[in-house]
Amino acid sequence: MMRKINLEDKFSKVTEYWSPRIIGELNGQYVKLAKLKGEMVWHTHDDEDEFFQVVKGRITIHLSEESVELSEGECFIVPKGTAHMPEASEEAHVMLFEPKKTAHTGTTKSDLTVAIEDQEWI
Amino acid sequence: MMRKINLEDKFSKVTEYWSPRIIGELNGQYVKLAKLKGEMVWHTHDDEDEFFQVVKGRITIHLSEESVELSEGECFIVPKGTAHMPEASEEAHVMLFEPKKTAHTGTTKSDLTVAIEDQEWI
Repeated sequence: MMRKINLEDKFSKVTEYWSPRIIGELNGQYVKLAKLKGEMVWHTHDDEDEFFQVVKGRITIHLSEESVELSEGECFIVPKGTAHMPEASEEAHVMLFEPKKTAHTGTTKSDLTVAIEDQEWI
Repeated sequence: MMRKINLEDKFSKVTEYWSPRIIGELNGQYVKLAKLKGEMVWHTHDDEDEFFQVVKGRITIHLSEESVELSEGECFIVPKGTAHMPEASEEAHVMLFEPKKTAHTGTTKSDLTVAIEDQEWI
Protein backbone atom coordinates (compact mmCIF):
# COMPACT_ATOMS: atom_id res chain seq x y z
CA MET A 1 0.00 0.00 0.00
CA MET A 2 1.85 3.04 -1.24
CA ARG A 3 -0.79 5.40 0.06
CA LYS A 4 -0.23 8.34 2.29
CA ILE A 5 -2.12 8.39 5.58
CA ASN A 6 -3.96 11.59 6.47
CA LEU A 7 -4.54 11.57 10.21
CA GLU A 8 -7.53 13.92 10.18
CA ASP A 9 -9.23 11.81 7.54
CA LYS A 10 -8.50 8.62 9.43
CA PHE A 11 -9.71 10.00 12.75
CA SER A 12 -13.04 10.85 11.09
CA LYS A 13 -13.49 7.10 10.63
CA VAL A 14 -12.99 6.29 14.31
CA THR A 15 -16.53 6.26 15.65
CA GLU A 16 -16.13 4.67 19.08
CA TYR A 17 -14.15 5.67 22.12
CA TRP A 18 -11.47 3.31 23.44
CA SER A 19 -11.51 1.25 20.31
CA PRO A 20 -8.20 1.65 18.47
CA ARG A 21 -8.23 1.27 14.70
CA ILE A 22 -5.23 0.24 12.64
CA ILE A 23 -3.82 2.66 10.07
CA GLY A 24 -0.45 1.13 9.32
CA GLU A 25 1.86 -1.79 9.84
CA LEU A 26 5.63 -1.83 9.95
CA ASN A 27 8.24 -4.19 11.29
CA GLY A 28 5.72 -6.23 13.24
CA GLN A 29 4.20 -3.15 14.82
CA TYR A 30 0.84 -1.53 14.26
CA VAL A 31 0.16 2.18 14.05
CA LYS A 32 -3.28 2.82 15.52
CA LEU A 33 -5.60 5.73 16.13
CA ALA A 34 -7.97 5.99 19.05
CA LYS A 35 -10.47 8.48 20.39
CA LEU A 36 -10.52 8.66 24.15
CA LYS A 37 -13.13 10.05 26.48
CA GLY A 38 -13.66 9.17 30.10
CA GLU A 39 -11.64 6.51 31.88
CA MET A 40 -10.15 3.33 30.51
CA VAL A 41 -9.49 0.36 32.78
CA TRP A 42 -6.24 -0.20 34.63
CA HIS A 43 -4.19 -2.66 32.65
CA THR A 44 -0.69 -3.89 32.00
CA HIS A 45 1.05 -5.14 28.88
CA ASP A 46 3.49 -7.74 30.15
CA ASP A 47 5.65 -7.89 27.05
CA GLU A 48 5.03 -4.75 25.05
CA ASP A 49 6.01 -1.12 25.38
CA GLU A 50 3.29 1.24 24.19
CA PHE A 51 3.78 4.66 22.57
CA PHE A 52 1.13 7.39 22.85
CA GLN A 53 1.14 10.62 20.86
CA VAL A 54 -1.61 13.13 21.57
CA VAL A 55 -2.79 14.52 18.24
CA LYS A 56 -5.72 16.50 19.64
CA GLY A 57 -6.89 17.41 23.12
CA ARG A 58 -5.40 16.28 26.40
CA ILE A 59 -5.09 12.98 28.20
CA THR A 60 -3.82 11.82 31.54
CA ILE A 61 -1.97 8.54 31.85
CA HIS A 62 -2.28 7.37 35.42
CA LEU A 63 0.56 5.21 36.67
CA SER A 64 0.82 3.59 40.07
CA GLU A 65 2.90 6.39 41.58
CA GLU A 66 2.25 9.37 39.35
CA SER A 67 -0.01 10.75 36.64
CA VAL A 68 1.33 12.16 33.40
CA GLU A 69 -0.62 14.93 31.68
CA LEU A 70 -0.19 15.05 27.92
CA SER A 71 -1.32 17.78 25.55
CA GLU A 72 -1.33 17.96 21.78
CA GLY A 73 2.18 17.35 20.48
CA GLU A 74 3.26 15.38 23.52
CA CYS A 75 4.18 11.72 23.64
CA PHE A 76 4.74 9.07 26.26
CA ILE A 77 6.04 5.53 26.25
CA VAL A 78 4.51 3.19 28.81
CA PRO A 79 7.17 0.54 29.43
CA LYS A 80 6.11 -3.09 29.41
CA GLY A 81 4.99 -4.40 32.75
CA THR A 82 3.76 -0.97 33.89
CA ALA A 83 0.18 -0.73 35.11
CA HIS A 84 -1.53 2.29 33.54
CA MET A 85 -4.94 3.81 33.08
CA PRO A 86 -5.51 6.45 30.40
CA GLU A 87 -8.16 9.06 31.02
CA ALA A 88 -9.52 12.00 29.03
CA SER A 89 -12.03 14.41 30.53
CA GLU A 90 -12.87 15.70 27.04
CA GLU A 91 -12.54 13.85 23.74
CA ALA A 92 -8.91 13.39 22.78
CA HIS A 93 -7.25 11.84 19.76
CA VAL A 94 -4.16 9.71 20.09
CA MET A 95 -1.84 7.78 17.84
CA LEU A 96 -0.39 4.56 19.21
CA PHE A 97 2.52 2.38 18.22
CA GLU A 98 2.63 -1.11 19.57
CA PRO A 99 3.41 -4.67 18.52
CA LYS A 100 0.76 -6.38 16.44
CA LYS A 101 0.07 -8.85 19.23
CA THR A 102 -0.78 -6.13 21.78
CA ALA A 103 -4.23 -6.45 23.36
CA HIS A 104 -5.37 -2.92 24.15
CA THR A 105 -6.57 -3.76 27.63
CA GLY A 106 -3.47 -5.86 28.24
CA THR A 107 -4.03 -8.70 30.67
CA THR A 108 -7.24 -7.08 31.96
CA LYS A 109 -10.54 -8.25 30.52
CA SER A 110 -13.31 -5.67 30.54
CA ASP A 111 -16.24 -4.45 28.51
CA LEU A 112 -13.71 -2.37 26.59
CA THR A 113 -11.68 -5.38 25.52
CA VAL A 114 -11.57 -5.95 21.76
CA ALA A 115 -10.17 -9.26 20.56
CA ILE A 116 -6.96 -8.79 18.60
CA GLU A 117 -8.50 -10.49 15.58
CA ASP A 118 -11.41 -8.03 15.70
CA GLN A 119 -9.26 -4.91 15.50
CA GLU A 120 -10.16 -3.12 12.32
CA TRP A 121 -8.20 -1.26 9.70
CA ILE A 122 -9.54 2.11 8.64
CA MET B 1 12.36 7.03 31.81
CA MET B 2 8.83 7.97 32.79
CA ARG B 3 9.11 11.38 31.16
CA LYS B 4 6.75 12.81 28.66
CA ILE B 5 8.18 13.85 25.31
CA ASN B 6 7.25 17.28 24.01
CA LEU B 7 7.83 17.30 20.27
CA GLU B 8 8.27 21.08 19.94
CA ASP B 9 10.85 21.06 22.71
CA LYS B 10 12.67 18.11 21.20
CA PHE B 11 12.69 19.62 17.70
CA SER B 12 14.36 22.72 19.13
CA LYS B 13 17.32 20.47 19.95
CA VAL B 14 17.71 19.19 16.40
CA THR B 15 20.27 21.54 14.92
CA GLU B 16 21.26 19.80 11.70
CA TYR B 17 19.29 18.81 8.64
CA TRP B 18 19.11 15.12 7.67
CA SER B 19 20.46 14.02 11.00
CA PRO B 20 17.78 12.13 12.92
CA ARG B 21 17.89 12.27 16.71
CA ILE B 22 16.42 9.63 18.98
CA ILE B 23 13.59 10.58 21.34
CA GLY B 24 12.29 7.20 22.39
CA GLU B 25 12.74 3.46 22.25
CA LEU B 26 10.11 0.76 22.31
CA ASN B 27 9.97 -2.87 21.32
CA GLY B 28 13.29 -2.72 19.49
CA GLN B 29 12.25 0.37 17.56
CA TYR B 30 13.46 3.94 17.81
CA VAL B 31 11.31 7.03 17.61
CA LYS B 32 13.34 9.77 15.95
CA LEU B 33 12.94 13.38 14.95
CA ALA B 34 14.56 14.95 11.92
CA LYS B 35 14.61 18.31 10.24
CA LEU B 36 14.68 18.10 6.48
CA LYS B 37 15.64 20.70 3.92
CA GLY B 38 16.80 20.08 0.39
CA GLU B 39 17.32 16.62 -1.02
CA MET B 40 18.46 13.48 0.72
CA VAL B 41 20.18 10.71 -1.21
CA TRP B 42 18.37 7.83 -2.86
CA HIS B 43 18.58 4.85 -0.57
CA THR B 44 16.94 1.58 0.36
CA HIS B 45 16.47 -0.22 3.66
CA ASP B 46 16.63 -3.89 2.74
CA ASP B 47 15.07 -5.22 5.92
CA GLU B 48 13.21 -2.37 7.58
CA ASP B 49 9.98 -0.54 6.93
CA GLU B 50 10.19 3.15 7.75
CA PHE B 51 7.36 5.35 9.04
CA PHE B 52 7.31 9.11 8.37
CA GLN B 53 4.95 11.56 10.04
CA VAL B 54 5.14 15.18 8.96
CA VAL B 55 4.85 17.32 12.08
CA LYS B 56 5.57 20.66 10.38
CA GLY B 57 5.91 21.77 6.78
CA ARG B 58 5.80 19.60 3.69
CA ILE B 59 7.97 16.90 2.25
CA THR B 60 8.04 14.84 -0.91
CA ILE B 61 9.07 11.21 -0.81
CA HIS B 62 10.27 10.25 -4.24
CA LEU B 63 9.85 6.61 -5.15
CA SER B 64 10.94 4.96 -8.37
CA GLU B 65 7.56 5.30 -10.06
CA GLU B 66 5.80 8.05 -8.16
CA SER B 67 6.31 10.89 -5.72
CA VAL B 68 4.24 11.25 -2.57
CA GLU B 69 3.58 14.75 -1.22
CA LEU B 70 3.04 14.90 2.52
CA SER B 71 1.81 17.84 4.56
CA GLU B 72 1.54 18.35 8.29
CA GLY B 73 -0.57 15.57 9.78
CA GLU B 74 0.19 13.13 7.00
CA CYS B 75 2.15 9.91 7.27
CA PHE B 76 3.71 7.39 4.97
CA ILE B 77 5.29 3.99 5.38
CA VAL B 78 8.15 3.19 3.02
CA PRO B 79 8.16 -0.61 2.78
CA LYS B 80 11.46 -2.40 3.13
CA GLY B 81 13.33 -2.86 -0.10
CA THR B 82 11.83 0.29 -1.63
CA ALA B 83 14.23 2.88 -3.02
CA HIS B 84 13.23 6.33 -1.84
CA MET B 85 14.55 9.87 -1.67
CA PRO B 86 12.97 12.39 0.71
CA GLU B 87 13.02 16.04 -0.29
CA ALA B 88 11.83 19.25 1.33
CA SER B 89 11.95 22.56 -0.50
CA GLU B 90 11.49 24.41 2.80
CA GLU B 91 12.44 23.21 6.28
CA ALA B 92 10.16 20.42 7.42
CA HIS B 93 9.95 18.46 10.66
CA VAL B 94 9.30 14.75 10.67
CA MET B 95 8.92 11.98 13.21
CA LEU B 96 10.24 8.57 12.23
CA PHE B 97 9.67 5.08 13.56
CA GLU B 98 12.11 2.42 12.56
CA PRO B 99 14.03 -0.53 14.00
CA LYS B 100 17.02 0.37 16.15
CA LYS B 101 19.37 -1.14 13.59
CA THR B 102 18.18 1.10 10.74
CA ALA B 103 20.89 3.16 9.06
CA HIS B 104 19.22 6.34 7.87
CA THR B 105 20.81 6.28 4.44
CA GLY B 106 20.12 2.54 4.18
CA THR B 107 22.62 0.71 2.03
CA THR B 108 23.81 3.98 0.48
CA LYS B 109 26.90 5.64 1.90
CA SER B 110 27.05 9.39 1.50
CA ASP B 111 28.15 12.54 3.24
CA LEU B 112 24.82 12.39 5.07
CA THR B 113 25.47 8.96 6.52
CA VAL B 114 25.64 8.85 10.32
CA ALA B 115 26.93 5.64 11.88
CA ILE B 116 24.24 3.91 13.91
CA GLU B 117 26.39 4.12 17.02
CA ASP B 118 26.72 7.88 16.54
CA GLN B 119 23.02 8.59 16.50
CA GLU B 120 22.26 10.81 19.44
CA TRP B 121 19.46 10.97 21.94
CA ILE B 122 17.97 14.36 22.59
